[in-house]
Amino acid sequence: MPPGTTVLEAARALGVDIDSICGGRGICGRCQVEVSSGTFAGLDTDESHLSPIGSTEESYADRKDLAAPRRLSCAATVLGDVAIEVPAMSRVHKQVVRKEARVEALQVDPAVRLHYLELSDPALGSPIGDRERLLAALQAEWGLWPLSLDPHVLRELHSAITDGEGTVTVAVHDEAQVTAVWPGFHEDAYGVAFDVGSTTVAGHLADLSTGEILASAGTMNPQIRFGEDLMSRVSYVMMNPGGESELTTAIRGALDDLIGELCADAGVETSDVLEITVVGNPIMHHLVLGIDPTPLGTAPFTLATTESIRLPAVELDLAVNAGARVFVLPCIAGHVGADTAACILAEGPHGGERVQLLVDVGTNAEIVLGNSHRLLAASSPTGPAFEGAQISSGQRAAPGAIERARIDPVTLEARVKVIGSDLWSDQAGFAESISATGITGICGSGIIEAVVELYLAGALSAAGVIQSRPGNERIITDGRTFAYLLMDEPRLLVTQNDVRAIQLAKAALRAGVQLLMDRLAVTQVDDIRLAGAFGSQIDVQYAMTLGLIPDCDLGSVRSAGNAAGVGALMALLSVEERAEVERVVRTVEKVETAIEERFQEHFVEAMAIPHTSDEYPNLRRVVTLPATPDPNRSGPPRRRRSGASRKNP
Amino acid sequence: MPPGTTVLEAARALGVDIDSICGGRGICGRCQVEVSSGTFAGLDTDESHLSPIGSTEESYADRKDLAAPRRLSCAATVLGDVAIEVPAMSRVHKQVVRKEARVEALQVDPAVRLHYLELSDPALGSPIGDRERLLAALQAEWGLWPLSLDPHVLRELHSAITDGEGTVTVAVHDEAQVTAVWPGFHEDAYGVAFDVGSTTVAGHLADLSTGEILASAGTMNPQIRFGEDLMSRVSYVMMNPGGESELTTAIRGALDDLIGELCADAGVETSDVLEITVVGNPIMHHLVLGIDPTPLGTAPFTLATTESIRLPAVELDLAVNAGARVFVLPCIAGHVGADTAACILAEGPHGGERVQLLVDVGTNAEIVLGNSHRLLAASSPTGPAFEGAQISSGQRAAPGAIERARIDPVTLEARVKVIGSDLWSDQAGFAESISATGITGICGSGIIEAVVELYLAGALSAAGVIQSRPGNERIITDGRTFAYLLMDEPRLLVTQNDVRAIQLAKAALRAGVQLLMDRLAVTQVDDIRLAGAFGSQIDVQYAMTLGLIPDCDLGSVRSAGNAAGVGALMALLSVEERAEVERVVRTVEKVETAIEERFQEHFVEAMAIPHTSDEYPNLRRVVTLPATPDPNRSGPPRRRRSGASRKNP
Repeated sequence: MPPGTTVLEAARALGVDIDSICGGRGICGRCQVEVSSGTFAGLDTDESHLSPIGSTEESYADRKDLAAPRRLSCAATVLGDVAIEVPAMSRVHKQVVRKEARVEALQVDPAVRLHYLELSDPALGSPIGDRERLLAALQAEWGLWPLSLDPHVLRELHSAITDGEGTVTVAVHDEAQVTAVWPGFHEDAYGVAFDVGSTTVAGHLADLSTGEILASAGTMNPQIRFGEDLMSRVSYVMMNPGGESELTTAIRGALDDLIGELCADAGVETSDVLEITVVGNPIMHHLVLGIDPTPLGTAPFTLATTESIRLPAVELDLAVNAGARVFVLPCIAGHVGADTAACILAEGPHGGERVQLLVDVGTNAEIVLGNSHRLLAASSPTGPAFEGAQISSGQRAAPGAIERARIDPVTLEARVKVIGSDLWSDQAGFAESISATGITGICGSGIIEAVVELYLAGALSAAGVIQSRPGNERIITDGRTFAYLLMDEPRLLVTQNDVRAIQLAKAALRAGVQLLMDRLAVTQVDDIRLAGAFGSQIDVQYAMTLGLIPDCDLGSVRSAGNAAGVGALMALLSVEERAEVERVVRTVEKVETAIEERFQEHFVEAMAIPHTSDEYPNLRRVVTLPATPDPNRSGPPRRRRSGASRKNP
Repeated sequence: MPPGTTVLEAARALGVDIDSICGGRGICGRCQVEVSSGTFAGLDTDESHLSPIGSTEESYADRKDLAAPRRLSCAATVLGDVAIEVPAMSRVHKQVVRKEARVEALQVDPAVRLHYLELSDPALGSPIGDRERLLAALQAEWGLWPLSLDPHVLRELHSAITDGEGTVTVAVHDEAQVTAVWPGFHEDAYGVAFDVGSTTVAGHLADLSTGEILASAGTMNPQIRFGEDLMSRVSYVMMNPGGESELTTAIRGALDDLIGELCADAGVETSDVLEITVVGNPIMHHLVLGIDPTPLGTAPFTLATTESIRLPAVELDLAVNAGARVFVLPCIAGHVGADTAACILAEGPHGGERVQLLVDVGTNAEIVLGNSHRLLAASSPTGPAFEGAQISSGQRAAPGAIERARIDPVTLEARVKVIGSDLWSDQAGFAESISATGITGICGSGIIEAVVELYLAGALSAAGVIQSRPGNERIITDGRTFAYLLMDEPRLLVTQNDVRAIQLAKAALRAGVQLLMDRLAVTQVDDIRLAGAFGSQIDVQYAMTLGLIPDCDLGSVRSAGNAAGVGALMALLSVEERAEVERVVRTVEKVETAIEERFQEHFVEAMAIPHTSDEYPNLRRVVTLPATPDPNRSGPPRRRRSGASRKNP
């Protein structure tokens, strides 16, 4: 290295990845390194082998943080042998360890990068356009060539150069397109990841340089006024030609409002939002994009596209930076959407040898099964029972809804937990703890627990028939069928129809899972991930007792929480993750349950509770153990009095 | 060739260029060929060596024109040796001979092509998106891969496929982007070429498949309400920050209205307009694009870009096909715009050895000089005198304006021609012929002819001083200077200031030309082209007598008429012409007159009339000849009584 070589130059010459916005001018501070002391590879190294801290670093330290032993690699020059450590934050491609996200490390290598430039002066008589001066600097300083400019950048360029006194910062997407320009030095670049659900829309605002999540927020999907569930919205469009534009306007407005809310929360400018990712089920995917979803309502359920989509944010009427880009993750099939693709990205079933079952339960259950060798996906028409719909006392999972139930096998008296309170209904202070809402109904996990408890109490046959129990006033009858009186005030019943609805839903899910297991030729799965809101609420043991999921070591079953949102976030922060999800989705084998004969067979078989008695060795082992407190369970430990014997009648 | 090979297949296998939209399905008729009879290269050829006319061709002939000996090459199969002629219209890359345009042959190979496709049926259980079915067909049938889709195409695709019962036609731009989709077969594709002048805007509507001009129209530039000339519009923007958006809205509205008018004239749908080209001076160029033009108002006169621009038509708020694209020709320098680039494309100074001088006179004169080896360009600040501004009786070239003047050298009585009439003022019926407007003033060519005539009549010195002529009442005085009374009713004068204004303007132009000739190291030019409205009006001999242009064989001097419009049309119809203008503009050497010392010297020298007496051997030869009628002149032949002697005083 010639004398005066900076650490940054030396590192780049050696192919070491160090970040920079300002191109080595001591402005951005992205290129910070640390000097190691001691002997490495037989060479002595010491901070004295770097030039002393000079004016550039002093000036930077005055403005921002530069604590010893950190140095600016663009300012410090190499005087002798020196071992340099590049902190993760100083790398262009970095991994950021995050506790709050489900994935342990988020890849940060966003599609957009900022570049600070000092432009040559225009000279009279050697005319060169502003655009050409910009592109020449981008080529000379950053090796970026050829590049195109967004039309709005061309419009803003001259005043940015003038206001920045010859210096500008530009955003470059995909190393191909100049999408934004600011006067002088600019380092703020944010992104928003959206998970667009039929009921709720969630957004996460992240710093594109650090990967840090700055704010998260959710809102109701305003399309609900056009229909509670997906199919009623498709019907709305079918009945009102052009109605998709109303639905599109509604959802885009919600996204735009969320962006405003997220930016206000985090104290950042919406004009600094440069990247957006969107995931959602196929119908939400189409409606956000303004595509008529009615083809998804009838066979053969044709998607507009099975590939990812990149488009300018202005196409979605989002008031962010005029050059912001949207990446919409790919849908997999007509009923298996970009949300499932995002779940795959987040949970990575394709990443190893273990066979993973990934289930996202909603109106349809999206089911993914496989490993690195082969990945299958299907959608199973569970109906909305798991969401509390079509249940006599059912409701959506919201404050006031019963989410857990324990039924005394002798008296059939129930104690419950209600969303919004941490207490069980037989604990002191319960009534006060729910005074804001009261008890308003039963949500999906509550009805499942009630059904399982009734079964374990012998009040429900394996075939799903509520049993008469003379003398017990919790079992009532309308003359034709029996019902279980879960609660007197308010009066909440579990009717025979409710049990049938749950049986149908669980049979549909279970049959879909079984179909994929047949296809993959496996008789058991190694891991189970339950994604989505329902997947977070459901108690795994109850799900297994009901036969909702196949047998699995309970330690390998867990909620995947907001896996779709995490996948959207991963794609927001990383072009590698985008390539990954695009690649994986192309390899996924789609199984259409509607045309598989075996599906009907599995469906009929799966109606019973439990599915079959020998299928759950793991569950049998758990429930025959003495009842010990389970620290992973949110409720108090449950006392089973005769669990094992009742379980295998 | 195996039996059953169609002529189209055989031709393509041999690399012969035959057009098609429908991909060989006998629908579009673009692939028509003719069979030659006789012996070619030792082989007998005859129409009997093709399959007889079958149902496909009969069906086509029923719908459209297919006169013998034309055959559809996609239907006719080869039975023996056969010589086939491919008419120009059946070629993908064709030349269309056009009489009305200045160029003899227009290249037709537009940036957009139409492709008719029959898509595979979607099948339940093998999900593939509409987009993917489309792209698969485009790859299989047309070898186009990879392609992107405009977002609006994704939105329209499913209903197009449904309405077309599985068939669609798509527009593909630059073999890269699917920009439009129609159900079934669609063959209409039009383009509009715009020449955006400061005063008027001209548009030409062309059929992109044939190159035929279907309609032409012009309109006033509505920006005139913000300022008559360019600089006053720039001043408006400087005084009213953000004012460029008003100017932009105004001009885009005019373009949009013109498109509507052109399409209505030709009876075509605006939604079938897929291509637009725009040329204009740098300020019009910027304002159409919505770019602040104020940097062009002050040194160093920085352009936003010196490259061509491609952008969607929606970016310019034009109500054409949602996928239409705009190609804006490149500007050359801060004062030398895309209109000059278009003139270069149309007149082709770079196409040969002859040194061509191409001049476009407006408020500034754009000057291009050179040949295939070297091309120079400059702008010279002529001021608006040639446009009739800053002249006491001056006006724009419009009906009622005096455009020609002949002055009797003895009496100094004038006879004139007025725009709107073919008669001279001393011919019978003149007064009636101009009754609609009367005589309203003198336009640029009129004042030039008047000045030259005064000079030839001895009433003006070579230095430009109006001479006293006692006893002649056409020469009047205000006491300090003299003036020429061109007309009594209305009273129209040629004042000493008017002569000075013309002298300054012509000196600026001539000095610019001389500067470029110095640079190119030539003392004479081989061809002169006078572009623009002024170039069409000006009489070449008067221009030369005034010293406006250098000496040249008069047969090699001609008006280039609407060269800018022709250049815009050429770029509209041909990607090769686009590449050509981009390539040439990059090679043009820009000369900035303002910083060239020699410019001031040339300017002073060029003030006199004529420039110098020995510089015009061609002119001297012409004016010493007996006056013979010149069929190329619009006015009656002129009798010179003592031209030669007066010319060299």
